[in-house]
Amino acid sequence: MSGSSKRSLTVGVLGGMGPEATVDFMARVLAATPARVDQEHIRMLVDHNPGVPDRHAAIAGTGADIGPELAAMARGLETAGADFLVMVCNTAHAYTDAIRAAVRIPFVSIVDVVMAAVAEHPARVVGVMAADGCLQAGLYQQALAAAGREPLLWTAAEQERFMALLWRLKAGERGPAVRSGLQALAASLEFAGAELLLAGCTEIPLVLEQGDTGVRLLSSTDLLVRHTVALALTTSIQEE
Amino acid sequence: MSGSSKRSLTVGVLGGMGPEATVDFMARVLAATPARVDQEHIRMLVDHNPGVPDRHAAIAGTGADIGPELAAMARGLETAGADFLVMVCNTAHAYTDAIRAAVRIPFVSIVDVVMAAVAEHPARVVGVMAADGCLQAGLYQQALAAAGREPLLWTAAEQERFMALLWRLKAGERGPAVRSGLQALAASLEFAGAELLLAGCTEIPLVLEQGDTGVRLLSSTDLLVRHTVALALTTSIQEE
Repeated sequence: MSGSSKRSLTVGVLGGMGPEATVDFMARVLAATPARVDQEHIRMLVDHNPGVPDRHAAIAGTGADIGPELAAMARGLETAGADFLVMVCNTAHAYTDAIRAAVRIPFVSIVDVVMAAVAEHPARVVGVMAADGCLQAGLYQQALAAAGREPLLWTAAEQERFMALLWRLKAGERGPAVRSGLQALAASLEFAGAELLLAGCTEIPLVLEQGDTGVRLLSSTDLLVRHTVALALTTSIQEE
Repeated sequence: MSGSSKRSLTVGVLGGMGPEATVDFMARVLAATPARVDQEHIRMLVDHNPGVPDRHAAIAGTGADIGPELAAMARGLETAGADFLVMVCNTAHAYTDAIRAAVRIPFVSIVDVVMAAVAEHPARVVGVMAADGCLQAGLYQQALAAAGREPLLWTAAEQERFMALLWRLKAGERGPAVRSGLQALAASLEFAGAELLLAGCTEIPLVLEQGDTGVRLLSSTDLLVRHTVALALTTSIQEE
């Protein structure tokens, strides 16, 4: 670009985990950006890499370590010109340290963004809707406990039902069966005492929205979208 | 990645022109990929750069030359690991030479992909629905003439109406007014004798679909999607 101009920050997106969740994130970023013309939108460098091996197997120790691959993606986005990084997958945040160690630019954790929203809500018992790997890594249980909240999880049978729905979502299913299945699982956490629900998996908002649940549902996707847009637009760089 | 594995090709996407069209392209790539799990999807490196200055002004000579910026985006995607490039904007294809000169990997032109589909259709008169810059650069008029087809364009007043609808689309409008406006403009080309219509602007399929027109409508977006998926999946690389 020539001439002196102010530009918003460029967002680097570690994506493809899963594919639909990344495209959904991007669409929500566009919708959340107050732009009337193309040029007022945010630049996003996206590594849409669905080939990252199964996160749940990696965390369980039965699959390959994906830390090096996520670190390489982060470095690639930094080299390409990203000013800060986000990752559209809660479970993969188990590798936050590996990502942060690989780059000099900030990595905005979805867990931190969600916890900032939790802090504004008085709920003591918080229902965590998340995938196996995310729970096994303890991402939200530890953060909630540190914040003086009580994390509430599904029973083993319910968790298994969630994972089955998640695989159907990833296979492209969007019908009422998947939605009502998720609604039932959300209701079960409410009946067990959850005063607030976390959609701690970026596939959940593909079918489940606020209004489908009896208590407030915090969407990790939407919270990351809002934080990303705010950060990119409020911090601008003066160019030559 | 460790171990010997076959992988599909990585697609580099010059995007953000406009933002909605790029996200629409990505969503259509996912839908067109025969995948049941994340890992069967295609890797896309996306430079979603809505800041590229106005293409129409650049082509008209009243705005900055955007060739260098598109070339830099292409080089960045090549460096990041793309095996081939596509660009989700017909008008910006006026800079195809600048992009091809900047990289060693193939750049798949949307115009070539559309013309391959035209070749399979017997139409003599082809209605071109495209934006000002695309027409001023003569991209489809020259390609159609070279293929022995007769390009049919809107009147100046109709072209102005199309551009007004395009800006409304870019501003996020998706209502029936925009759709019926585009339907009327498509019908006008049909009445004037078009036996085939080209949606030669990636914003058009955001609201106008086959079924909205009386004659066959070739969507440049969908044709690029199909070609991209086929190329990425049929050509695979053996990795160490």
